[in-house]
Amino acid sequence: MSGKKGLDFLRTVATYMTKTNGYDRCLQQLEMVSGGDGRCVAEFKVGEEHLNRAGGLHGGYTATIVDVVTTYALMTKENCVPGVSVDIHVSYLKGARQGDEVIIDANTVRAGRNLAFLECELRHKKDNSIIAKASHTKYIGSS
Amino acid sequence: MSGKKGLDFLRTVATYMTKTNGYDRCLQQLEMVSGGDGRCVAEFKVGEEHLNRAGGLHGGYTATIVDVVTTYALMTKENCVPGVSVDIHVSYLKGARQGDEVIIDANTVRAGRNLAFLECELRHKKDNSIIAKASHTKYIGSS
Amino acid sequence: MSGKKGLDFLRTVATYMTKTNGYDRCLQQLEMVSGGDGRCVAEFKVGEEHLNRAGGLHGGYTATIVDVVTTYALMTKENCVPGVSVDIHVSYLKGARQGDEVIIDANTVRAGRNLAFLECELRHKKDNSIIAKASHTKYIGSS
Amino acid sequence: MSGKKGLDFLRTVATYMTKTNGYDRCLQQLEMVSGGDGRCVAEFKVGEEHLNRAGGLHGGYTATIVDVVTTYALMTKENCVPGVSVDIHVSYLKGARQGDEVIIDANTVRAGRNLAFLECELRHKKDNSIIAKASHTKYIGSS
Repeated sequence: MSGKKGLDFLRTVATYMTKTNGYDRCLQQLEMVSGGDGRCVAEFKVGEEHLNRAGGLHGGYTATIVDVVTTYALMTKENCVPGVSVDIHVSYLKGARQGDEVIIDANTVRAGRNLAFLECELRHKKDNSIIAKASHTKYIGSS
Repeated sequence: MSGKKGLDFLRTVATYMTKTNGYDRCLQQLEMVSGGDGRCVAEFKVGEEHLNRAGGLHGGYTATIVDVVTTYALMTKENCVPGVSVDIHVSYLKGARQGDEVIIDANTVRAGRNLAFLECELRHKKDNSIIAKASHTKYIGSS
Repeated sequence: MSGKKGLDFLRTVATYMTKTNGYDRCLQQLEMVSGGDGRCVAEFKVGEEHLNRAGGLHGGYTATIVDVVTTYALMTKENCVPGVSVDIHVSYLKGARQGDEVIIDANTVRAGRNLAFLECELRHKKDNSIIAKASHTKYIGSS
Repeated sequence: MSGKKGLDFLRTVATYMTKTNGYDRCLQQLEMVSGGDGRCVAEFKVGEEHLNRAGGLHGGYTATIVDVVTTYALMTKENCVPGVSVDIHVSYLKGARQGDEVIIDANTVRAGRNLAFLECELRHKKDNSIIAKASHTKYIGSS
């Protein structure tokens, strides 16, 4: 049943992943918007807790979002485990400020037997301008 | 006086940066160990709040450490501002578990007029094995 | 006139760039297909001179294509100079063999005052499957 | 015998790899200097055939060198095959001109069961200043 891997599945995954005393709790405010079949679209409003000292969206938080939301995207593929990060690369194109609404769009470019290649964009909701573009390579084979 | 840009300076920077309601508060436990002249060495013990759902050091937290500690390293250079992130790339070589002590070693490879190139390693304190290697490019010119 | 920055412009650029005793001569067989306004689409057939010792498309040649074709894309933007490479990142998803026809699709994600962010995909023409995905950051300000 | 994997081995590998009609022939002028046990140091003099249109060392050629010389480094490890490229990331710090002598220093950071993490620096021989820093991730497991 494909519904299992769609929006309901993503909401279940995101709730499970972020209801923790671990680091993922910093992603609790992300709202799952759509996805399935290798994709995950989420959104959040930039809060004070996401800012760097200059008052902009923190680059480390952006990297964390990339890491996690691409993993959600990967988990919507049939038979796909979360895998283990190999390489993550983020390009920072534009800032975001407190109160800005941000769309996160993560996609599985390829999930092979051993490696998965994922991509992610963060965009301003108001005008679709790109905040960050990223790629994430994960090992998904049996080690 | 070079002392201004050494360990005391790094402790002052780290305290200022992480005493905030912003995202950098998640780095409060990092202890500055040595540095100056473009370098920053810090350490921390992996706590529950740094873990992913599999019980390992979270890749997003690792990326956050890279972002911030390389910026501390950059700030020890004369005339250097924190700058703005352009690209960050992290390779994940080995896991770390709760209780593990981790060394962070960040270095300014080159700080030119417009761009700074920084590198960072996270290593296990017990055997110096590498957890992650990263590079961080920042724009430091006037925009 | 926008035509100046479209396909004719790209053909002129590509001819100028590769008619040289320099390294760009290895890209002479690339055929410009379409583009303009920050984009460049080209194609080529994998020849013996593009192969590694295992008989596949060479990763170094792929990186060279990314470097050059994203620069062509950038040059179709108004007022844009070729710029200088800051960071290039290539993910290798799938192989290609001699005789395979390859599409190269390069795009300017953002060209600001100082930095340009470019992306590039190499795909098999026969089924559109992705061979490589890449990002390229260039400095385009006055130094 | 460890000599098998030292300088003589590297010279044999480099000769075999570049005596080809394939793309690696563009690396024939690289001279192996030292290495073994996961490392490879080589050098070359920048020639006209390595230049971009602006008269500097071509970024695509630099990426090609990174790809190949890190692979030589990997091959000096016991039981290590050349592997297949997963991700390559190059940061460009400084230019080089025709006639400049360049040192290439490649190192295996970690070669595990499935993945190898390699790093590479290109430096000016005259003053050791860094031209480029790079990382290269390869898949070395059985697919």
